[in-house]
This record gives sequence, C-alpha cells and structure tokens, in this order.
Amino acid sequence: MILRNLNDIRKSDQNVRADGWASARMLLEQDGMGFSFHVTTLFAGAELKMHYQNHLESVFVLKGKGTIEDLGTGKTHKLKAGDLYALNDHDRHILRPETDMLTACVFNPPVTGKEVHDESGAYPAAEREPVPAD
Amino acid sequence: MILRNLNDIRKSDQNVRADGWASARMLLEQDGMGFSFHVTTLFAGAELKMHYQNHLESVFVLKGKGTIEDLGTGKTHKLKAGDLYALNDHDRHILRPETDMLTACVFNPPVTGKEVHDESGAYPAAEREPVPAD
Repeated sequence: MILRNLNDIRKSDQNVRADGWASARMLLEQDGMGFSFHVTTLFAGAELKMHYQNHLESVFVLKGKGTIEDLGTGKTHKLKAGDLYALNDHDRHILRPETDMLTACVFNPPVTGKEVHDESGAYPAAEREPVPAD
Repeated sequence: MILRNLNDIRKSDQNVRADGWASARMLLEQDGMGFSFHVTTLFAGAELKMHYQNHLESVFVLKGKGTIEDLGTGKTHKLKAGDLYALNDHDRHILRPETDMLTACVFNPPVTGKEVHDESGAYPAAEREPVPAD
C-alpha cells in the first residue's frame, strides 16, 4: 500500500511548476499503478494550449472556474468545480483558467516524472512527458 | 473530448449506492481511457472491508477524515483531505470513515459499470467489478 500526502509532495521534487501551472505528482509510472495521478493548479489568467500526443488524460475540477476550447470542434466549454473533461482522442485544446483552478488529473500511460529544467525554467518533455504544447 | 458533470452523474444510472458508500462513476471502461474515475462518498460510521483482487485502485481524499487498516501489515493509518492511498498490491484493507469522506478514485483496469442490483439492494460484482468484500 502506498500512502502519500499532497503537502509533502508539494515540498518534494515530485512537484513541478511551469508558466501558468503547478502539478503535484502523487503517483508516477514507477509506482506501478498503470496510470499517474496529479493534483494540478492552473493559475488565473493563464492561456494553456496543450496537445498530449502520447497520453490520454482526464481532469476533474475541484475548485475554481475557467473554460476549455476544443480546437477540433472550435467549441468552448465552461468548467467549474464538479466538471470533468477527458481527452480521449488526444484532443488539442486551450485551457483558460479565470480563477486559480485546482484539478485532479489522471494520465494513461503514466507520466515518468523524469523531466529536467531547461534554461528558461520550464520542463521539457521527456520521451513520454506531457507538457503544454506550442 | 468527453465532458461530464458530477451532479449529472449522480442523477444517472452511473451513480451506484451500497451499504456505507455511494459512487459517481464519471468515467467507465466504455469511455476508452484505460482507467475508470469515480467520485465516491464513504459514509460516517461505516466499516468497509475490501479486497479488489482484479484491480489496482488509488484513492485521493477530498473532504472528511477516517482511517485505513492495512490487513497485510496490521497497521492503521489516518486519512484526511490531501491524503492518497494506492492499493498497488491488491491490498486487503478496512476503511473506517469517521465523517462522511469524499474521495476521487481511479481503477485500473477500468470498472465496466455493468453491475446489477441483487435482492438485498447491493451490487454484485460483474466479472471485473470491484465491490466491498466479505
């Protein structure tokens, strides 16, 4: 049985930050669950264009509000606590948090957590590491 | 892109209830994510002895408090908001919510959701369906 605590993870190297978001990686590939589980904060005012080519991801909103634009359909959907979206088709999308948004995210396959800071302070993608896309 | 809302799921047949718990199944096997995602309430005072023989499960506590007894080690651990446990070894355990506990749960492989009520009102396990064990 694995036991973890969000505040502990946030103080550890399993907490990653980049422009517009911070993610506490509660479970990673090495934990052998077959998925990874992250508690991710999306900061108010950010515009996060993302495309996870190698992952499926679900996001459950715990706090805050914002929108998600589905670049495949052109539609924008409101997000608030209690909403979930799932990128079941590697959907290209733009997240626009209007307030700080706290989310619980699941990735399949699991994130490895082996990313390294680059010179800009961002976290480049490892071979299978999802990050906000250009 | 899949979009769901907790309150909608709670009004649907994807919300299941049994003695001591209720679970809103936000994502099921049929959604093709490779995991299922449930928002589960564990009711205060319940004693839930569980053993998921065919699934790995992670549970992140959103609200409330209680304990988990690991029947493999005999140890009891406190649980509160921000804590996560993961049954990475099909761990036999007993959950004892002291207050109503709201949790976000991930199952691998995903739950099918095809369970049927039995005469007692409980939900017998489908071939791959986790339920509280005897």
